[in-house]
Amino acid sequence: MAKKYVYFFGGGKAEGNAEMKDLLGGKGANLAEMTNLGVPVPPGFTITTEVCRMYYANRGRVPKEVKEQVRKNLAKLEKLTGKKFGDSKNPLLVSVRSGAKFSMPGMMDTILNLGLNDRTVKGLAERTGNERFAYDSYRRFITMFADVVLGLDKDLFEEKLDEKKKEKGVSLDTELDAEDMKALAEAFKEIVREKTGKPFPQNPNTQLDMAINAVFRSWNNPRAKFYRKANNIPDDLGTAVNVQTMVFGNMGDDSATGVGFTRNPATGEKEFYGEYLVNAQGEDVVAGIRTPKPIKELRKEMPAVYRQLVDITKRLEKHYKDVQDFEFTIENGKLYMLQTRVGKRTAMAAVKIAVDMVKERLITKEEAVMRIEPIQINQLLHPIIDPKAEYEVIAKGLPASPGAACGVVVFSADRAVEVASEGKPVILVRKETSPDDIHGMDAAKGILTARGGMTSHAAVVARQMGKTCVAGCEEIEIDEATNRFMVKGRTISEGDYITLNGNTGEVIYGQVPLITPKLTGAFGELMKWADSFRKIGVRANADIPRDAQVARDFGAEGIGLCRTEHMFFAEDRLPIMQKMILARTKEEREKYLEQLLPMQKEDFKGLFRVMKGYPVTIRLLDPPLHEFLPKREDLLVEVTKLELLHADRELIEEKKRILERVEELHEFNPMLGFRGVRVGIVYPEIARMQVRAIMEAACEVAKERVKVKPEIMIPLVGMASEMRVMRELVVSVAEEVQKKYKKKVPYLVGTMIELPRAAIRADEIARDAEFFSFGTNDLTQTTYGFSRDDAGRFIAEYMRRSEKCPECGETLEKDLSCPACNVTYDRRPDNILDFDPFQTLDQKGVGDLIRIGIERGRGTRPNLKVGICGEHGGDPASVEFCHLNGFDYVSCSPYRIPIARLAAAQAAIREKERTRVAKAASSTKRSRAKSSKRKSAKK
Amino acid sequence: MAKKYVYFFGGGKAEGNAEMKDLLGGKGANLAEMTNLGVPVPPGFTITTEVCRMYYANRGRVPKEVKEQVRKNLAKLEKLTGKKFGDSKNPLLVSVRSGAKFSMPGMMDTILNLGLNDRTVKGLAERTGNERFAYDSYRRFITMFADVVLGLDKDLFEEKLDEKKKEKGVSLDTELDAEDMKALAEAFKEIVREKTGKPFPQNPNTQLDMAINAVFRSWNNPRAKFYRKANNIPDDLGTAVNVQTMVFGNMGDDSATGVGFTRNPATGEKEFYGEYLVNAQGEDVVAGIRTPKPIKELRKEMPAVYRQLVDITKRLEKHYKDVQDFEFTIENGKLYMLQTRVGKRTAMAAVKIAVDMVKERLITKEEAVMRIEPIQINQLLHPIIDPKAEYEVIAKGLPASPGAACGVVVFSADRAVEVASEGKPVILVRKETSPDDIHGMDAAKGILTARGGMTSHAAVVARQMGKTCVAGCEEIEIDEATNRFMVKGRTISEGDYITLNGNTGEVIYGQVPLITPKLTGAFGELMKWADSFRKIGVRANADIPRDAQVARDFGAEGIGLCRTEHMFFAEDRLPIMQKMILARTKEEREKYLEQLLPMQKEDFKGLFRVMKGYPVTIRLLDPPLHEFLPKREDLLVEVTKLELLHADRELIEEKKRILERVEELHEFNPMLGFRGVRVGIVYPEIARMQVRAIMEAACEVAKERVKVKPEIMIPLVGMASEMRVMRELVVSVAEEVQKKYKKKVPYLVGTMIELPRAAIRADEIARDAEFFSFGTNDLTQTTYGFSRDDAGRFIAEYMRRSEKCPECGETLEKDLSCPACNVTYDRRPDNILDFDPFQTLDQKGVGDLIRIGIERGRGTRPNLKVGICGEHGGDPASVEFCHLNGFDYVSCSPYRIPIARLAAAQAAIREKERTRVAKAASSTKRSRAKSSKRKSAKK
Repeated sequence: MAKKYVYFFGGGKAEGNAEMKDLLGGKGANLAEMTNLGVPVPPGFTITTEVCRMYYANRGRVPKEVKEQVRKNLAKLEKLTGKKFGDSKNPLLVSVRSGAKFSMPGMMDTILNLGLNDRTVKGLAERTGNERFAYDSYRRFITMFADVVLGLDKDLFEEKLDEKKKEKGVSLDTELDAEDMKALAEAFKEIVREKTGKPFPQNPNTQLDMAINAVFRSWNNPRAKFYRKANNIPDDLGTAVNVQTMVFGNMGDDSATGVGFTRNPATGEKEFYGEYLVNAQGEDVVAGIRTPKPIKELRKEMPAVYRQLVDITKRLEKHYKDVQDFEFTIENGKLYMLQTRVGKRTAMAAVKIAVDMVKERLITKEEAVMRIEPIQINQLLHPIIDPKAEYEVIAKGLPASPGAACGVVVFSADRAVEVASEGKPVILVRKETSPDDIHGMDAAKGILTARGGMTSHAAVVARQMGKTCVAGCEEIEIDEATNRFMVKGRTISEGDYITLNGNTGEVIYGQVPLITPKLTGAFGELMKWADSFRKIGVRANADIPRDAQVARDFGAEGIGLCRTEHMFFAEDRLPIMQKMILARTKEEREKYLEQLLPMQKEDFKGLFRVMKGYPVTIRLLDPPLHEFLPKREDLLVEVTKLELLHADRELIEEKKRILERVEELHEFNPMLGFRGVRVGIVYPEIARMQVRAIMEAACEVAKERVKVKPEIMIPLVGMASEMRVMRELVVSVAEEVQKKYKKKVPYLVGTMIELPRAAIRADEIARDAEFFSFGTNDLTQTTYGFSRDDAGRFIAEYMRRSEKCPECGETLEKDLSCPACNVTYDRRPDNILDFDPFQTLDQKGVGDLIRIGIERGRGTRPNLKVGICGEHGGDPASVEFCHLNGFDYVSCSPYRIPIARLAAAQAAIREKERTRVAKAASSTKRSRAKSSKRKSAKK
Repeated sequence: MAKKYVYFFGGGKAEGNAEMKDLLGGKGANLAEMTNLGVPVPPGFTITTEVCRMYYANRGRVPKEVKEQVRKNLAKLEKLTGKKFGDSKNPLLVSVRSGAKFSMPGMMDTILNLGLNDRTVKGLAERTGNERFAYDSYRRFITMFADVVLGLDKDLFEEKLDEKKKEKGVSLDTELDAEDMKALAEAFKEIVREKTGKPFPQNPNTQLDMAINAVFRSWNNPRAKFYRKANNIPDDLGTAVNVQTMVFGNMGDDSATGVGFTRNPATGEKEFYGEYLVNAQGEDVVAGIRTPKPIKELRKEMPAVYRQLVDITKRLEKHYKDVQDFEFTIENGKLYMLQTRVGKRTAMAAVKIAVDMVKERLITKEEAVMRIEPIQINQLLHPIIDPKAEYEVIAKGLPASPGAACGVVVFSADRAVEVASEGKPVILVRKETSPDDIHGMDAAKGILTARGGMTSHAAVVARQMGKTCVAGCEEIEIDEATNRFMVKGRTISEGDYITLNGNTGEVIYGQVPLITPKLTGAFGELMKWADSFRKIGVRANADIPRDAQVARDFGAEGIGLCRTEHMFFAEDRLPIMQKMILARTKEEREKYLEQLLPMQKEDFKGLFRVMKGYPVTIRLLDPPLHEFLPKREDLLVEVTKLELLHADRELIEEKKRILERVEELHEFNPMLGFRGVRVGIVYPEIARMQVRAIMEAACEVAKERVKVKPEIMIPLVGMASEMRVMRELVVSVAEEVQKKYKKKVPYLVGTMIELPRAAIRADEIARDAEFFSFGTNDLTQTTYGFSRDDAGRFIAEYMRRSEKCPECGETLEKDLSCPACNVTYDRRPDNILDFDPFQTLDQKGVGDLIRIGIERGRGTRPNLKVGICGEHGGDPASVEFCHLNGFDYVSCSPYRIPIARLAAAQAAIREKERTRVAKAASSTKRSRAKSSKRKSAKK
């Protein structure tokens, strides 16, 4: 018997199956599988990948025996469908598609309606009773064929179409009538003749042979080659060709077309969901010219078909164990499934569906947990804009902090507090925010800034506070003097309402209704399962009791980072802090520190009470001292003005005195300057006050019979000697306080690892540190040499470069498709940076240092506690990194806690699965080895 | 026979020898060795370390048999010296010293003149004919004994002495006469009686026993224990006790005392050098009350003794193979050597002596090379202040760049150029320098700044230029408005002369004569030897042909770093550069770049011509663009002023336009900002111009039949993708230029490794980099998180801490001795930082990253060329690091080249020696193993 090169599918059974991807390609194997499952897909056949290899071996020719097998299968198809290839009454039309083992952009996609010619187009017109449709299909087919098979420029046809529209005085294709389409088809054929010197092929068999050859050719076009290279796909796999019957839903009133979901994709409710149109083609459902009917009505109109559809889609859902999004066509009362795929859904629906499916025993709890994209959960934790609302977007910035917020515009932090206290919701609009704005951000519902990136002050603090924030909205022009901002010719003044969408970065004019999603039972259940799978702890970055409470509500198991400096920016404290910094002697400094002590102590007591025995990691003062003082430039300008205006001498002297100290503290690169542990060592009295406040708070709360677990963290350590000296300081104060209170409180002393040197010398530092918390923000800054405040500009450029098509230089679309080349990349093609390392941990660089740090640290102290407390603590990919590298916990903003919990669970499940697979593989190997031993023993 | 606990030395032979350090301690073994060598050291005996261990095992008692052996040895001593312990006519007096195996501060040092009492003091007075001397010695002995043996407070005695001086109305000890000393001795004994309840011991044997016990006790005093712990010296070694006869040079005219060198320590000439005093004690030579005679005169006065002295010291020089610095005493015509040690010498002498000794076959060339402290060579390369000159130091700063310079003071770079062009030598005085000052620094002989550390702009550039610089001289108060500076009440105005000593940091009033040392023949010879031993190349950091020429003269084998940005600060270029930066479009930028191109090309041509085929590594533009623009604060103040004064609108607008661009480019942390390769990627036209200039220059010079070897270096690479993109850019321009010139020029493309991420991901970066040059300045900044411009303050504090005594908190002296505790530390006791990592490479942190970088880089590209071009390239310890870690070359300032050559040679010699020792050890082991095998085989 001759070798089999073509595999048929249709009529309830197929010659191939899902396992035959090597031979039939992914698409062909799947069509075979569906057919075998009893799903009525339009029948057809697949030409194997082997033929593709033969084609190339054979200098671009398809061997004769293949052609013969194609003819035979065509005949089979004609028999099954009752249609005939090239028949003018009931013509068989087919689609031709490429289909390699791996889904692969760059190759020929689809030719529809192959088999149309001057004669069969009439049959199609007759059978559909729609001449315009038939000729429209014909002229489209000619275009597509000319483009991908004959290699002509599509623009030639587009121009002709435009001419026609101009001639008719219309602007839309749909405004052209049947005669226009007929004329266009003629004109298109003329173009083909003119450009190729040959008439457009009228013989359907010739069309088919040419299309098959075109598919094989497309395997080696530059884009496909580039893609294979980038993805390590061998060049000799070859592609299969799928030839499939066209079916039409516009063949009369016993025909229809529709789309649907096996469950409600918005809510997750288990209900058959979808819509359809009688006597229509697929495009009509989407186009919105006719209003589709809800799918339930099909039950009345075509009860048998409806039952079949429900039955099939149920089976599909069971088979694929997930919600199906399907397209179907009914041709003369016969149902065909055109497509079925996993359905997209909202976060709320995703959670409900996953939990329901576990209850239906369709999937396991692990699978349910794996079904939710962690980042999606954000939607469930914040208000969203009502999906039904209509609104006008006036500008777009960066989606810096999720959720939606609506309120009246104010332009200063103080006004935010005032207006909010009147009970009005407030949106704070600033060029950029600084620590001085904290109270205003706190009072506002949302924050909008004109400058700054995803990790600007506004963005970081807003995420921390769980406030909606749109940052870096450069379109808006703020005029603080007149309290308004301009955008696209429109002026928004203080008191006007705007709405922010922090998920998209949209700035919306006026008030828009918001929905506050509830943390439903399903969500709670899912998170419980997640917690049962995950191996690493999840803590929160929280500075104040209110944030700590939010964190607890979201399931935090401790505080991984309490930034004590945030406490000093409060209105009642900043002046004292400033006096302390301006002080000239240690004694003077200590005087003001004494005043700060009781305030800090109260802060800590609040935290300890909320956390009820969960560990609270408190970082000693970190920022450079000048952050607490007025800005140097402002003072310079002020003094210049005061002097020129001959202002009061005393005032000038006062300002000059401050300026002098500011100048003294001024740094060229504050990020690499006098901050962190360096301040603690040079001014130990500050550190001592903080440790005293922590330990006194701990003792006092412990006396209230609340468990306390302070973990005191030294920032910015780079040398073992720094850690040693600070540990001695902490221990001596802690012991003294405990003696005073006659109360023992368990506490740890540890450090942030946020400098490359700390990671490299972790072995020495671990001698005096009981825990490491990787401060990946700073570590990323120093490892890359990127200032977080400045790098935004070139990081954007580094990522924008990658948005250009390497083929043609066009800017790629958001989905990485090139509008010119008609190719979609799955990764950025010419990137300097694939991602912003401040958002996603750079595992190869920063991550390698972290690995070194952990290895060396645990080399010295095997039970060293290891955590992470940078922005990355809530990024799912980074959480997985932490899971895999032996972290004890991750710490992130309160609103990121559920995301981190889910990501940690998924990381654990994935690892378990990998281990299982590896074990299975090695046991197979072993058993093979055994059996071969046995065999050789027998000899 | 009883066990031997006491070892005698004297009369030409000793019972011990140099090998017996374990038992006799270092000092005791050495005294024995010297005696055996025939050197007439005053005779004595050593009590072994074993006795010390017995003392502690025995609860603080010296066993009886030891005491007996001590008595016997005392008798021997009496016999040999003809003196008797406790004798009132000719008393034997001894010194008692501790002496462990390792030299160890913290233990009891010395008790002199033990054996003095009320009777023997009279004998001493009589024999020396100097009653005042005898009683002065007695009261000193009492004080010393009371302090170290009896544990009384020294202050008690000091107070009494002060009382006496007050009573006599004198201020100096020397003004007290014999009667006063007698009275003091009586008073001191009274203090002892009062405080201890017992009289001062009069029995010399009792004195000796008590002193021996005190030595043993001192082994375990806290300072000694601390020292052992810090230096890993076992606690159970114990110390020996050395008891040695006192000799006196003031016993009459046949007695004398003197000091000398076997060669001239200032010039290195081979001449017997020294001075002496007849009938005097050692102190008199130093005190300067009597003028000592040149040692040659001794030849006439005591010819036999002179011959003996010459003979002995010659033998000592031969024995120790180095110049000896010795002290001797002649007691009644008998010569005693009191001390001999390796003599300190000037750099010039060191070189001459080393070279001479090779010629005398005393030492090998390797040993000669090892004899010179590389850093010392600095003295040979720069002018120095005439050692004979007298001058007034008015301030002291940091010795930022070596040499001495004298000139008239100016306060601005422009004035420096003007005054210098009048032919006057100029000293540029600035608060701090910036790139704007380069032309002024270039015109000046020396630079003095009020701010900034050893790695401030002024310091780095001055070292680079080979100019003398005193930096961070905070005492001076500069008033730029009136062109003067104030210091200690004195005012120095423009035009006044000052002199700078860059070796000490001294600022000197007026003109001081300078000496320009010549690179003598000996120096050249030594450097030739060094070159024959060293394994790694030495290149220079040089930006202009003149510096390159200096580098060549000093032996540079290439340029390791040419900073192209320095070329843009020149007067004729800066305005064009500024226009280029202010440009809004690429086209505009390219216009100005076109203007810069020929200038840069000329620079490079000059370098290539000087370097004649040696490689020239050229770094593309590195600093942030705003460095080329006026300062933001200055502009802010200026604009404020102009507006308030209602200045010309157009001028204000112009300034505002610049300010706007400056604001745009403003960065919070420029060191981590938009610079280096980042500029090259975002504005590729700048990089393209530079590469074009380099390659056109190379082609043009090559056509002059001069070999050229450009190495194009990309700065601040952190990601492989950056390197890839820049390599493509460089290659495409380079190929284009070569095609245009029809000339092939060999060139390399490489990168600086100056970010931790670059070291970590060196494997990937090496794919596109043909060489790595470690930029250790930046790498140190990011690894530590230290900004070089800002960290000075806390680095100083980090190192100052370590200057405090851990015992008492007193600030230590420069030699790390504590003035209160009388202990000298050999390392800083409580340091956060032992050294400034910007001066000496941090081998444990930064160095570890370098090792990782080299390993990973060579993993990808085994023949990767590796160099270093930070400030560390000329630091000897860092050069050794580079040698040991497989660097191909180091690159440093031209004036550091000889230092680096020498350091590289020493590193190679040390390594060879280590390998030799290791091989010897392992071959011993092997032969032992063999012989033991043989033995076991025999059985």
